Amino acid sequence: MDIKGFRFSAVEAAIKKPGRLDLALIFSELPADVAAVFTTNKVQAAPVLISRARAKNGRCRAILVNSGNANACTGEQGMSDALSYGRRAAEALGLPDEELLIASTGVIGQQLPMERLRVAIQPLVDKLDHGTLDQVSQAIMTTDTFAKLERRTGQAGGKNYQIEGVAKGAGMINPNMATMLSFLVTDAAVEPALLKSAFSCAVEGSFNSITVDGDMSTNDTALIIANGAAGNPLIKAGTPEAAAFFALLQDAMLSLAKSIVKDGEGATKFVSVRVQGAASNAEAKKAALAVADSLLVKTAFFGQDANWGRIICAVGYSGVQLEQDRVEIRFDDVIMAKGGVFAGGDAEAAGTEVLKRPEFTVTIDLHLGCGEGVVYTSDLSYDYVRINADYRT
Amino acid sequence: MDIKGFRFSAVEAAIKKPGRLDLALIFSELPADVAAVFTTNKVQAAPVLISRARAKNGRCRAILVNSGNANACTGEQGMSDALSYGRRAAEALGLPDEELLIASTGVIGQQLPMERLRVAIQPLVDKLDHGTLDQVSQAIMTTDTFAKLERRTGQAGGKNYQIEGVAKGAGMINPNMATMLSFLVTDAAVEPALLKSAFSCAVEGSFNSITVDGDMSTNDTALIIANGAAGNPLIKAGTPEAAAFFALLQDAMLSLAKSIVKDGEGATKFVSVRVQGAASNAEAKKAALAVADSLLVKTAFFGQDANWGRIICAVGYSGVQLEQDRVEIRFDDVIMAKGGVFAGGDAEAAGTEVLKRPEFTVTIDLHLGCGEGVVYTSDLSYDYVRINADYRT
Repeated sequence: MDIKGFRFSAVEAAIKKPGRLDLALIFSELPADVAAVFTTNKVQAAPVLISRARAKNGRCRAILVNSGNANACTGEQGMSDALSYGRRAAEALGLPDEELLIASTGVIGQQLPMERLRVAIQPLVDKLDHGTLDQVSQAIMTTDTFAKLERRTGQAGGKNYQIEGVAKGAGMINPNMATMLSFLVTDAAVEPALLKSAFSCAVEGSFNSITVDGDMSTNDTALIIANGAAGNPLIKAGTPEAAAFFALLQDAMLSLAKSIVKDGEGATKFVSVRVQGAASNAEAKKAALAVADSLLVKTAFFGQDANWGRIICAVGYSGVQLEQDRVEIRFDDVIMAKGGVFAGGDAEAAGTEVLKRPEFTVTIDLHLGCGEGVVYTSDLSYDYVRINADYRT
Repeated sequence: MDIKGFRFSAVEAAIKKPGRLDLALIFSELPADVAAVFTTNKVQAAPVLISRARAKNGRCRAILVNSGNANACTGEQGMSDALSYGRRAAEALGLPDEELLIASTGVIGQQLPMERLRVAIQPLVDKLDHGTLDQVSQAIMTTDTFAKLERRTGQAGGKNYQIEGVAKGAGMINPNMATMLSFLVTDAAVEPALLKSAFSCAVEGSFNSITVDGDMSTNDTALIIANGAAGNPLIKAGTPEAAAFFALLQDAMLSLAKSIVKDGEGATKFVSVRVQGAASNAEAKKAALAVADSLLVKTAFFGQDANWGRIICAVGYSGVQLEQDRVEIRFDDVIMAKGGVFAGGDAEAAGTEVLKRPEFTVTIDLHLGCGEGVVYTSDLSYDYVRINADYRT
């Protein structure tokens, strides 16, 4: 079933190498609400500054996004360029400037190729009649090796509604949203306050629970637009319909987030790092992040080396409360360490077998409290180095 | 000129692969004072727990150190083993247990090969008659590719004194002392309080100003023993002799620290990251660390890619106070960015030339305040991944 009241478009504006889609548009035919989160980096790209201000109004009809150039660290020129091509698009769509958000991803510190951008706007708008969300998902890719798109169907008051979303990630993925873009649309009618709250909770459990290299970008943006075109009775906070909507949204966003990790630059493994028995949920997540970000842990994953010592070491320097002699570490079902020491027996061989799997879970039980948290990460391979040493060349 | 009143020894105890020195002893013939700093990791190896307690007394005659096994996450067995071989060494030297410190480096989570260690103690003590500090510097190596040793000569009250030291580093190097061991000895007579203060200041400016991979180990230990055998009048705080002693000590320790970075696993570049114009010195160091630890920055160094955007991005997420449009970035003398934007002209080509050098300085001027800080780091290469994926195999 198609989502109602949204149209999509993508074109080649020659911002990236020729032959690749690099400019995309998402458009709501109806007035719509928006909830958005942006990078916490103190250096912020022009489109982030503009869209953050506009999203505060809570209303949004269109999202214009380019890849290939981040329009970050481009000063006043970058800001006036962003305002200028944004206005051109808003005019072509017949919208006030404020109802169009913009986003960019790509190289930092280079001015946009404004001539090429300007001439691409009208074809982009014209293409709304026959563009698809799939094309949008391709147009936002940078070093991604596959496009990321999720679709979910829900029901409220006997009416079906859709949640659809795209994302791009690869390098610089980190909690707090790093060079990550994700745009979701839904035709469900949802209370604006519920939309905001559901979205921010879902971000915490998805995009803010993944890490590839610990860097945070200047351009991260995630947002959802809801236009109510499905015609369902308004979904209100505290109802079963709200819970169902949140569960669907969270599920879609977690799938997008996991796709980003799987497509992490050079990644060969998908690893869930779960910490339990921590003093609090916040401490559990902090410890999981330290493990998930440790280069020594990530290279050991790549080498399929059951080196649980590096894991306990990372938990140790994360600064969370722990009793060294209570720590238990499991690779999937294999107990590697118990009471803070090597579990012995065939743990080494069995643990190594687990690490040969393309996906596995590392569980760290601090046996201290009830705090739990999970972070999704990848290994660190030769290819990560190759891709990032060569990115601009 | 030889240092007075110290003897050294190293043997092959077969903790590492055969044919490599892996057990070393530093011994003071006279009563001596000690100043020491240890890892802040909450998971601490048995030798760290033992030596930290013993060093509090401020007196120390001997340091016993092994490589190949960290004796970390080894529980009560590891603790009782450490106490046991430590006692054996103290007895052979005719010392109370408390005047012998121990240190270990190597794989985490494996019990020590106690039989081999025990039989190696007496030969180690016997060899004190003809061992050298060079041998000690070799015996503490793990993935280091060269031994690290520094010697300095000072003068106080007409008497020459020596400061000598060894270090091992490679992976897991991080501020707060990560899988880093460093042992310094001096025959200068120094007030104990001055020794402690000078050492902790010198640690801050040396071992705590380097970073290779951001990990922190369970075993880090740095210490200095002073035995006064040079016969100089006691060096007291606030005197020119104290300043001279501190300068020499700092210089020796900075050289050791820089050697560790140069020998960082897979390193092909030595990079000084200097932040100036920050709100405070602490903020400057925090920003420098974020840049020095960024995988995207370090892979760009490896790729000789003048990608200043990644640098300003890392400063941005470090959380320090900044005005985006004041930030200036230089690669040695080449201005890459000014006023937060690309400097233009031939900066790209000139900056790329700088990055081809084996050593260069990245200066980030926030143009905000008077805070300054410098951190020394390396690039991140294929070899870092190879070495750490294969470490235990």
